[in-house]
Amino acid sequence: MPIVQVNMMAGRTDQQKESMIRKVTDAVMDAVSAPEQNVTVLINEIPKSEFGIGGQTAEKLGR
Amino acid sequence: MPIVQVNMMAGRTDQQKESMIRKVTDAVMDAVSAPEQNVTVLINEIPKSEFGIGGQTAEKLGR
Amino acid sequence: MPIVQVNMMAGRTDQQKESMIRKVTDAVMDAVSAPEQNVTVLINEIPKSEFGIGGQTAEKLGR
Amino acid sequence: MPIVQVNMMAGRTDQQKESMIRKVTDAVMDAVSAPEQNVTVLINEIPKSEFGIGGQTAEKLGR
Amino acid sequence: MPIVQVNMMAGRTDQQKESMIRKVTDAVMDAVSAPEQNVTVLINEIPKSEFGIGGQTAEKLGR
Amino acid sequence: MPIVQVNMMAGRTDQQKESMIRKVTDAVMDAVSAPEQNVTVLINEIPKSEFGIGGQTAEKLGR
Repeated sequence: MPIVQVNMMAGRTDQQKESMIRKVTDAVMDAVSAPEQNVTVLINEIPKSEFGIGGQTAEKLGR
Repeated sequence: MPIVQVNMMAGRTDQQKESMIRKVTDAVMDAVSAPEQNVTVLINEIPKSEFGIGGQTAEKLGR
Repeated sequence: MPIVQVNMMAGRTDQQKESMIRKVTDAVMDAVSAPEQNVTVLINEIPKSEFGIGGQTAEKLGR
Repeated sequence: MPIVQVNMMAGRTDQQKESMIRKVTDAVMDAVSAPEQNVTVLINEIPKSEFGIGGQTAEKLGR
Repeated sequence: MPIVQVNMMAGRTDQQKESMIRKVTDAVMDAVSAPEQNVTVLINEIPKSEFGIGGQTAEKLGR
Repeated sequence: MPIVQVNMMAGRTDQQKESMIRKVTDAVMDAVSAPEQNVTVLINEIPKSEFGIGGQTAEKLGR
């Protein structure tokens, strides 16, 4: 029953999120032989003003 | 000082969220004899396009 | 598919953990009408030297 | 590579979030001698209707 | 800078953990075109007595 | 009621953890004018075999 939380910067398309869920699920199944139905993936989109790298927001860094 | 994070699909009413916070708090108090004021419950609503079950989004699955 | 993470201080008995999982699951089922099999509860035990309240460890505070 | 997640009630200004990221990054660097570029801070803003203290939402408590 | 947290039942070998980190990193790189060095994967092993499925511990369920 | 989770590699001394809790608490108080007693800091130590950077474990990377 692996549960995966993906924290990433906001701004991805629905297609990218679908791809993330599909590919990460496959990776987890493959790594630990988990049945597909047991893998849960939760994406957490973080606004650039709330994502800090080296003390600055991603917004200020122009990411 | 138990801190509980509830990850669930978006779309619940305010009344359901209040009920979640009340009931989970009571459950935690009861299970480990924690004083009410020490229990914190954080709800994290996850959009259906970011909730993956068995490799597909909840949106695609029609959940 | 609610997924609940309970962060609490280390030192509980197995019986208390079982009770936590049972009672929190019931609370979640009740609050949002989720089927029992869809509720996952993960307990995260935190050592007292890694649990900070008001700037001090729970260990130093004698909790 | 410390990764810090700050869960706090929604409603802070961008300036407060920038200050949070700057100050928490400095604190982590200072505490464990981590290089600045290795410190990541993620802010998670929680609506008052989803933040439960002692069994009630922060909204109901007038926080 | 995607940061992935994998919560799974304790008891995996070091080789399986290495495989998990390698495969999940590749999946994330592929899904959102992230540079390899920017992907962080944190595994969180959860003892069977602290992993609840449908109200019972994984230990009791014989998982 | 800010709740801070610090994920970092295992191997720090108790003194470093105390310092982390003290300094991060002060940073949070300062950034959003939170009362000291309302700040909770949870440290999560991650073994090097479970911390992945760029697809490899911190153990393999010699961190």
